[in-house]
Amino acid sequence: MNQNKNVNRRIVLASRPDGKPVLDNFRLETGDIPQPDDGQLLLRTIYLSLDPYMRGRMNDAPSYSPPVELNAVMVGGTVSRVEASRHPDFSPGDWVLNQGGWQDYALANAGEVRKLQGDILQHPSWALGVLGMPGFTAYMGLMDIGQPRAGETLVVAAASGAVGAVVGQVAKLKGCRVVGVAGGEEKCRYVTQTLGFDVCIDHRAPDFAHRLAQACPGGIDIYFENVGGAVFDAVLPLLNTSARIPLCGLIANYNIKDLSAGLDRLPLLTGIILRKRIRMQGFIITQDYGHRHQEFIEAMEPWVAEGKVRMREDLVEELENAPRAFIGLLEGKNFGKLVIRVGGDTL
Amino acid sequence: MNQNKNVNRRIVLASRPDGKPVLDNFRLETGDIPQPDDGQLLLRTIYLSLDPYMRGRMNDAPSYSPPVELNAVMVGGTVSRVEASRHPDFSPGDWVLNQGGWQDYALANAGEVRKLQGDILQHPSWALGVLGMPGFTAYMGLMDIGQPRAGETLVVAAASGAVGAVVGQVAKLKGCRVVGVAGGEEKCRYVTQTLGFDVCIDHRAPDFAHRLAQACPGGIDIYFENVGGAVFDAVLPLLNTSARIPLCGLIANYNIKDLSAGLDRLPLLTGIILRKRIRMQGFIITQDYGHRHQEFIEAMEPWVAEGKVRMREDLVEELENAPRAFIGLLEGKNFGKLVIRVGGDTL
Repeated sequence: MNQNKNVNRRIVLASRPDGKPVLDNFRLETGDIPQPDDGQLLLRTIYLSLDPYMRGRMNDAPSYSPPVELNAVMVGGTVSRVEASRHPDFSPGDWVLNQGGWQDYALANAGEVRKLQGDILQHPSWALGVLGMPGFTAYMGLMDIGQPRAGETLVVAAASGAVGAVVGQVAKLKGCRVVGVAGGEEKCRYVTQTLGFDVCIDHRAPDFAHRLAQACPGGIDIYFENVGGAVFDAVLPLLNTSARIPLCGLIANYNIKDLSAGLDRLPLLTGIILRKRIRMQGFIITQDYGHRHQEFIEAMEPWVAEGKVRMREDLVEELENAPRAFIGLLEGKNFGKLVIRVGGDTL
Repeated sequence: MNQNKNVNRRIVLASRPDGKPVLDNFRLETGDIPQPDDGQLLLRTIYLSLDPYMRGRMNDAPSYSPPVELNAVMVGGTVSRVEASRHPDFSPGDWVLNQGGWQDYALANAGEVRKLQGDILQHPSWALGVLGMPGFTAYMGLMDIGQPRAGETLVVAAASGAVGAVVGQVAKLKGCRVVGVAGGEEKCRYVTQTLGFDVCIDHRAPDFAHRLAQACPGGIDIYFENVGGAVFDAVLPLLNTSARIPLCGLIANYNIKDLSAGLDRLPLLTGIILRKRIRMQGFIITQDYGHRHQEFIEAMEPWVAEGKVRMREDLVEELENAPRAFIGLLEGKNFGKLVIRVGGDTL
């Protein structure tokens, strides 16, 4: 079944994952299309963004945002069109950025959405990527916490992904030596040849840590952390004095059920942070930097328009493919910003 | 043997500690008193500062400063008087702050010392404490990284010690609720009754973690980290969103030879830093904030003069007692800023 005007298809959280999510954790349902109240909009989802943070929302554990309730629609940013408007600032057909979730139709108060206008309408889905939350995350974490200086070495993982690609390209614009980490030769080739990173290393290589050390002969000044796990372990001994670690995600850790037995490396990490005078700082883009969105847009829009910052999209057709695509995202199977095309531009 | 004008007593690093330092790691030697070259000063040590960072210098491992060589004089900040001057800006009898080390006499270039003048000459040893490196560490770590705001809760360990006492008192001046941690009832009484902390908890209490949680009903906004170990473990679950952790020392970890077996809590710590958007930052006062020394002096001198910031000194007589006192410092046996009186004010 495709998107149509008679039913609302939605994907709900059927059960909480025990470690890695599986298809049974999701359920496709259909229901009525809701009706907007005064001041509300009825929005039809065109593009749905899939992002690693959603894994955290599937757990029933305290985090920076409340969990998705069982049997509730999965959350997610969407680019949508106005189907019906009961607010004077919006008309049917307008494009908006909203938090529509994994479904065809959503209601929103007019104050909760952002109207998309101007150049971005040539590529509306970019509002979910390079000009949206991932690009904003990359830009603010790099600029405010990473504080790149010309000649410094930056490392970022998931380098062909939505955040990593922007981090590296902006760091290049700031004069850094940029080393990416990605999964597989094809992604690495793209990262160096298309995105212009100096080096890209395949984290699947058995001698990955050795290759990373070779690629950073002067050590690492900025490690933009979005994966955790083995990449972080390889980065740790290479960190320079006064290194900065903006921390926006730990995708490698999201499916961990229990801490692994072995040596307790917590004192190792705090000791390195002390001796090397490192700044490590977690951030959540909307909570920490929502007030600086305009600054991001003013910097990024020209770079994108001039081709200085590029973004590859991994566009998957049809809402019902979202669960499988999301599971693949956590395994690094996507290549570029993962977006689901839920509906046609016109219907 | 007391300090005299015929020999230079010095305490050298005889061997490197294997875990906790022992007396055999030190050796008292005597030698000739050195002669200053042009531009140099001969300085006689009056007060020697003993500080936890010295434990790191005893290891032959890379850290923020090079290790003390075997058979070399132990390093340390000193308040000294000029015995002989071959520089026009200094005269015999002048008081200076220098890095004289654990010995009676030291040479220094005039540019390496700071002349002590004005009110501080009423208490010259304070240049090693509240108005010296520990006070500077407390002030900059708290103000620049901790960024205290009125109504927030701050926790600091070693609360009766040289750094912790200043951190807590300045945080009180900034309107924070201040919870100290110290070893034993006597120290805790001093911390609340004399220093004016809101609460002080004995880390030796079997239910320490529970008491800390009770003392912080609104969680912890700033944890000024100078000890590590069990205190850090108890603090971790209490950290609030957007908490700051200035990290200037890890005294509980300094004698650790190997990481302990158990669960690897490194991903636990990074996960908390991410989810709670925490800033954790190591710093070494001279390297990171040397250029802001004047700002510290201008804030702290009036507070000390007005009795708003107090400092207890633990004054130990005689250079030969320095090794035993230093070993005690690492075990929390001192009560206040540990200073060795090496020589008399007049000789």
